[in-house]
Amino acid sequence: MDYYSGYITKLIEELSTLPGVGAKTAGRLAFHILDMPKEQVEDIANAMINAKENVKYCKTCCTLTDQDECPICSSKERDHKTIMVVESTKDMAAYEKVGEYKGVYHVLHGAINPMAGIGQNDIRLKELFERLKDDVNEVIIATNSSVEGEATAMYISKVVKPLGIKVTRIASGVPVGGDLECIDNVTLLRALQGRVTV
Amino acid sequence: MDYYSGYITKLIEELSTLPGVGAKTAGRLAFHILDMPKEQVEDIANAMINAKENVKYCKTCCTLTDQDECPICSSKERDHKTIMVVESTKDMAAYEKVGEYKGVYHVLHGAINPMAGIGQNDIRLKELFERLKDDVNEVIIATNSSVEGEATAMYISKVVKPLGIKVTRIASGVPVGGDLECIDNVTLLRALQGRVTV
Repeated sequence: MDYYSGYITKLIEELSTLPGVGAKTAGRLAFHILDMPKEQVEDIANAMINAKENVKYCKTCCTLTDQDECPICSSKERDHKTIMVVESTKDMAAYEKVGEYKGVYHVLHGAINPMAGIGQNDIRLKELFERLKDDVNEVIIATNSSVEGEATAMYISKVVKPLGIKVTRIASGVPVGGDLECIDNVTLLRALQGRVTV
Repeated sequence: MDYYSGYITKLIEELSTLPGVGAKTAGRLAFHILDMPKEQVEDIANAMINAKENVKYCKTCCTLTDQDECPICSSKERDHKTIMVVESTKDMAAYEKVGEYKGVYHVLHGAINPMAGIGQNDIRLKELFERLKDDVNEVIIATNSSVEGEATAMYISKVVKPLGIKVTRIASGVPVGGDLECIDNVTLLRALQGRVTV
């Protein structure tokens, strides 16, 4: 028997498809949604549909944007000869929040992960290499410090270096404010290898 | 500056209004939604709107249902002279899953909580007392074992007993399969006070 109304069961089912949302959380969310004012429910539903309908990839850097070309790629104040390669739009936003970087980005939408069947053609690498035909001074690889991120960095480096373009990797090390005893061995080793003269 | 498209920012904002969803989780959900097929996004959005539009309170027991009267209240196989009072539709569903209870329910949609400004008129108590004018044999109070649930149980008991209707409270005690050393003091005390001869 259906303990709830079919509409509630359906809502719980749909919410369960979201990442990190199990049956219990979906139930809690569903009953919260039923308790909200109708306008607010419509706002959330419309925000989902509008985002999905209007957000596409920037034709240059492949970030998620609602324009043909994202504000950074179309800005004349950015250095278009320096490209920072990141895994996701969120990573790009993280660097934008810092505000110091004046170059442009390239968003891969993932990293090479043979175990999950994600090869070099499944992320936006072709689009990156296409951009390098223009005048580019430096490619800064800012993929994550994970196995997949490192593999992707290595692959990009191998392809780009022979083109005579400078390739750099953001530094690995101890995070500022990080407590040495809480940091994993690989990071500690990287921090030692990457030590600088002070 | 807006690091993302305005549509993404709006979506993250809206998702953050859900319970247990902070800025980070909202961001993760938003980017997941942008990655989903369009049809699936529409399914979730429609499930939200449909549930909100079609689900209302049962005219008898106040549970959430899409009919005027819920399937349990309109069933001829249930004992309409026994009413179990619960705090929420979810609690009612929990007892329905067990399947043994053959009476009907009354859903309060909350519990008396003076600290949060929720008095006896803010939950569906009036509707319960109205039902007692019909022929009712027993009111089973199955509010939660929290301070609010107990206060609500006490209030209902005080009102209903003088009407000459039997009032009972579901038993407090050690959950079946529960490990004694993990159980709080109040529950242990209740279990001792409520001990039965075997």
